[in-house]
Amino acid sequence: LTRRPEVSEGALIAIDWGTSRLRATLVDSGGETIAEAESDEGIGKIDRTHEAVFGRLVAGWPHVPAVIAGMAGSRQGWREAPYVPCPATSATLAKNFLRFVTDDGRPIAIVPGLMVRSRDRDGDVMRGEESQIVGLIDRQPGFIGTVILPGTHSKWVRIADGAIVDFQTFLSGEMFDLLARHSFLRHSVAEDRHDLASSPAFALGVERVAEEGLPFLAAIFSVRARQLLDDVDPRDNRAYLSGLVIGGEIAAAETLGRLSRDRALCIVGTEVLANAYRQALALLGRDVELFDGKDLAVGGLIHLANAAGFVEIGRHP
Amino acid sequence: LTRRPEVSEGALIAIDWGTSRLRATLVDSGGETIAEAESDEGIGKIDRTHEAVFGRLVAGWPHVPAVIAGMAGSRQGWREAPYVPCPATSATLAKNFLRFVTDDGRPIAIVPGLMVRSRDRDGDVMRGEESQIVGLIDRQPGFIGTVILPGTHSKWVRIADGAIVDFQTFLSGEMFDLLARHSFLRHSVAEDRHDLASSPAFALGVERVAEEGLPFLAAIFSVRARQLLDDVDPRDNRAYLSGLVIGGEIAAAETLGRLSRDRALCIVGTEVLANAYRQALALLGRDVELFDGKDLAVGGLIHLANAAGFVEIGRHP
Repeated sequence: LTRRPEVSEGALIAIDWGTSRLRATLVDSGGETIAEAESDEGIGKIDRTHEAVFGRLVAGWPHVPAVIAGMAGSRQGWREAPYVPCPATSATLAKNFLRFVTDDGRPIAIVPGLMVRSRDRDGDVMRGEESQIVGLIDRQPGFIGTVILPGTHSKWVRIADGAIVDFQTFLSGEMFDLLARHSFLRHSVAEDRHDLASSPAFALGVERVAEEGLPFLAAIFSVRARQLLDDVDPRDNRAYLSGLVIGGEIAAAETLGRLSRDRALCIVGTEVLANAYRQALALLGRDVELFDGKDLAVGGLIHLANAAGFVEIGRHP
Repeated sequence: LTRRPEVSEGALIAIDWGTSRLRATLVDSGGETIAEAESDEGIGKIDRTHEAVFGRLVAGWPHVPAVIAGMAGSRQGWREAPYVPCPATSATLAKNFLRFVTDDGRPIAIVPGLMVRSRDRDGDVMRGEESQIVGLIDRQPGFIGTVILPGTHSKWVRIADGAIVDFQTFLSGEMFDLLARHSFLRHSVAEDRHDLASSPAFALGVERVAEEGLPFLAAIFSVRARQLLDDVDPRDNRAYLSGLVIGGEIAAAETLGRLSRDRALCIVGTEVLANAYRQALALLGRDVELFDGKDLAVGGLIHLANAAGFVEIGRHP
């Protein structure tokens, strides 16, 4: 899964190092992508030093500085970059870069994560998504509203005046996986992954919890009952369960006031999942714009590296 | 785990054969318990024929009829006893006994499960709990209200005029297990099982979702944030997660109108779990009576076996 052409040019390596994946992009002094490399050596999976993993991934690329977002900055990561409190701007994040130099002399900067701490609500944390959001703000400086980043741990992020105001995490991706693969419902849902969101069963699941107001915890047993009593096809049931989980997340976000009609809403993510969220929101009468998370992450990392004076890259020369 | 004294008397064997356990009680012609036997050979775990498993468990007991409730009547069980629709009385259940005779000539009756099918709501099913509820109605013939049966798959059952009117299943026990043992929250909760419900953290979890109205899906990530940001003890976090799950179930039941103040409420279950539900409900200002599920199951099976003319047992001679 690694694409690693030998290159001699380049000004910065932008890295997204999450729990399950490691992704590197080499950009030139104009901010254009020259090469990409990727591996499944996420922070939760590596069996060598972080420096060795990093070094192997970027071997053959020029010896330029690297800026890193994601779990690489967690306590279990390469070096811990403590959480910065919200509200936070790109300037706040840049100011809190954790900088060091590798054994072979390469400058590294790790972007800190963000946290929410308030007396009014439970705490929350993110690592990695903040760089995508900086990329979004960089591209749409006037954006005021909520950004949804679907995933294993979905984030709903409020943005105003160029700052990340606060955010809320939902375990939706993990919840779907737990129910579909590890609960007794696994006997009632298919394993194959076709395009779930185009199925009428997906729409039914979304409507049940997000429109009719059936509580998520009261809805999920029906996946089993549908199979036992109505002989529902396990593939339809997989789409239905996906609708319940995504619809449940949207309903919970609405209860928390994060879906109000007078606020802009957009989705940052990968194609299939981002589309499923867009379809679920369309069923509820909300039209939202999609942005590619990988593009935004690279743009955000360049923006932050510039803001920190870590490198000097003109994106639009 | 098997207690199996040699006995020569006895009139009926009452059996609760679930997914993970098999429990047999030998009663005399007056309905009094003479002997008990138990094993972990649940329907989901056996590697011999059902008749062989049954025969070994009751070896040494007299050759009397057996009445069986639980997953033994499912498609994957000994013989399938199809679901009977609600509303259903003990007479309905007795009329739908699945009867047969073992190879060695012993009469067997399997109690059918119950189902809910309605245009107004999703379908639902139960197997085993119906016999406990018959036992409750047998003991409290005038009971009108809701019975909660906490467990892997909790049931909230509406009872009126001696009939099971309808019910709603929640995956709460399984949800707790999935989150505490199989999700990334496992790093934030302890494994040991002390008395969770007596902890202030349990109360906090219940209050968050059932009193303050925080949606369950929005609440669970805070288990992780509490550990990362506030260094909460993993044992407290286990109690907190338990409070979120049980509180989430209660909040969902309330949304569905199953917790209205003008209706009686009681709990049927085993001591620790039933007590946790009682404490959660007490925090919300509801006082509920507890009943022992095992006692009620035996009483219910005797009641049904009598009603079906399967045996003739005078419980109060």
